[in-house]
Amino acid sequence: MSGERVRVRLDIAYEGTEFSGWVVQPGRRTVQGELQAGLATVLRLPSVALMVAGRTDAGVHAVGQVAHADLPAQQWADVRTRLLHKLAGVLPADVQVSQIREAPADFDARFSALWRRYEYRISDSDVGADPLRRRQVLSTRRHLDDAAMAEAARALLGLHDFVGFCKWRAGGTTIRSLQEFSVARVGGEIVCTVQADAFCHSMVRSLVGALIAVGDGHRSVDWPASLLDLQRRCADIGVAPAHGLTLMAVGYPSADQFAARSAQTRVRREL
Amino acid sequence: MSGERVRVRLDIAYEGTEFSGWVVQPGRRTVQGELQAGLATVLRLPSVALMVAGRTDAGVHAVGQVAHADLPAQQWADVRTRLLHKLAGVLPADVQVSQIREAPADFDARFSALWRRYEYRISDSDVGADPLRRRQVLSTRRHLDDAAMAEAARALLGLHDFVGFCKWRAGGTTIRSLQEFSVARVGGEIVCTVQADAFCHSMVRSLVGALIAVGDGHRSVDWPASLLDLQRRCADIGVAPAHGLTLMAVGYPSADQFAARSAQTRVRREL
Repeated sequence: MSGERVRVRLDIAYEGTEFSGWVVQPGRRTVQGELQAGLATVLRLPSVALMVAGRTDAGVHAVGQVAHADLPAQQWADVRTRLLHKLAGVLPADVQVSQIREAPADFDARFSALWRRYEYRISDSDVGADPLRRRQVLSTRRHLDDAAMAEAARALLGLHDFVGFCKWRAGGTTIRSLQEFSVARVGGEIVCTVQADAFCHSMVRSLVGALIAVGDGHRSVDWPASLLDLQRRCADIGVAPAHGLTLMAVGYPSADQFAARSAQTRVRREL
Repeated sequence: MSGERVRVRLDIAYEGTEFSGWVVQPGRRTVQGELQAGLATVLRLPSVALMVAGRTDAGVHAVGQVAHADLPAQQWADVRTRLLHKLAGVLPADVQVSQIREAPADFDARFSALWRRYEYRISDSDVGADPLRRRQVLSTRRHLDDAAMAEAARALLGLHDFVGFCKWRAGGTTIRSLQEFSVARVGGEIVCTVQADAFCHSMVRSLVGALIAVGDGHRSVDWPASLLDLQRRCADIGVAPAHGLTLMAVGYPSADQFAARSAQTRVRREL
């Protein structure tokens, strides 16, 4: 297969419960694996490669995941109006593509992104989480002081080296710009909203784990911010379980900024 | 075990996916079975018997189920302030008791009830239901005419013999008072709300099945109401799948009316 290719953007939702995360792994059921297989079937191609904005871990959900793929122009033209419907016919019920549209060639789901936003949901009711929401909500059954958690979260905002909150991975930086970190009680659940330019591995769940330690009184309000001084990962932070976490949205600049943003991101990641 | 007993009311929520319905059945995992076993453990009793407002089928969910039990006064007094918390510690995550409180001796979860309200949720998006809500929402992937469904639903309101919509069961009447049957599009889902004094077996799912046939154009708007003239169950109605259905609430009169309502209900059921 050769010839002209078209870059497309996919908007994706999934329940992470029965997936071993996003990234394809041999012998495992993954979101990327199911989507690439579904696209190859519908497009009658031997394979399709997806690049994603947020490589979520096993058990993490998404309502606003974004990926891109380069498709042969002929196949795309043949099925574009029916592709979403056909894809829904072959995908399992726990993953959904809500939109597929042509994107500029310099759109990169990962490197063009300006920010990622996640929500982490916690029930601290002593009777447990709502059974109908238990796969998306962590149940602690101990009361959490959400005001203390909100104060601790505010102290983490801004540009910092989050190495204390990150699992080590070769290469790249752990300097991140935390743009939002808020804590609110909504309908019986504590919702932690976290937005940053990007996150390193396990960073969101470590940030939330540190807040939970504040909320249940094990740590002081200023403890999480004190971890910003560390030179390596903090072993005292409990990483919050995956199932409370959902990738809500990924933000991009206007189309004329895609290439510039990608170039800037790639350079920074290699610092 | 003898002596004084106390009647208690339990407010219950569950996700029906992994239950073979409410009613205890040998060798099956049921909501009643799990709750009775949990209560017996926490109260250190050989057994506890629950009477329920709505005996939901396999796969049906509840957020506002109500049951009652008669507990030995001594055990109740010993644990009443800690019972909810202890119960949450032994129950599986897909069933939750949100409240347990003492009730008058003539309160009967089933026979004192004035009405039951259910919601049935349908996604007619051609990309399928939201993956995070797929266990509570039927996905049809064909567009449904919700205005036509709403009109068909209105024509069913009032006191009728719903035998055409009921699976046959020995004894009792199929005359029911349908107090509400509305259809609304809410955030990408079609929500059918049904309230009646009581429902016979499979009645809600048959009512919704008849509406879906109207919504997808297989039947005319006046077809569901025409089935009220039948003398026996209508074989042409598709019973909607269980997983879209949730018992939302059960209504009761003020406490001084419990006994009168129970007496009235028992007489009517034996007509």
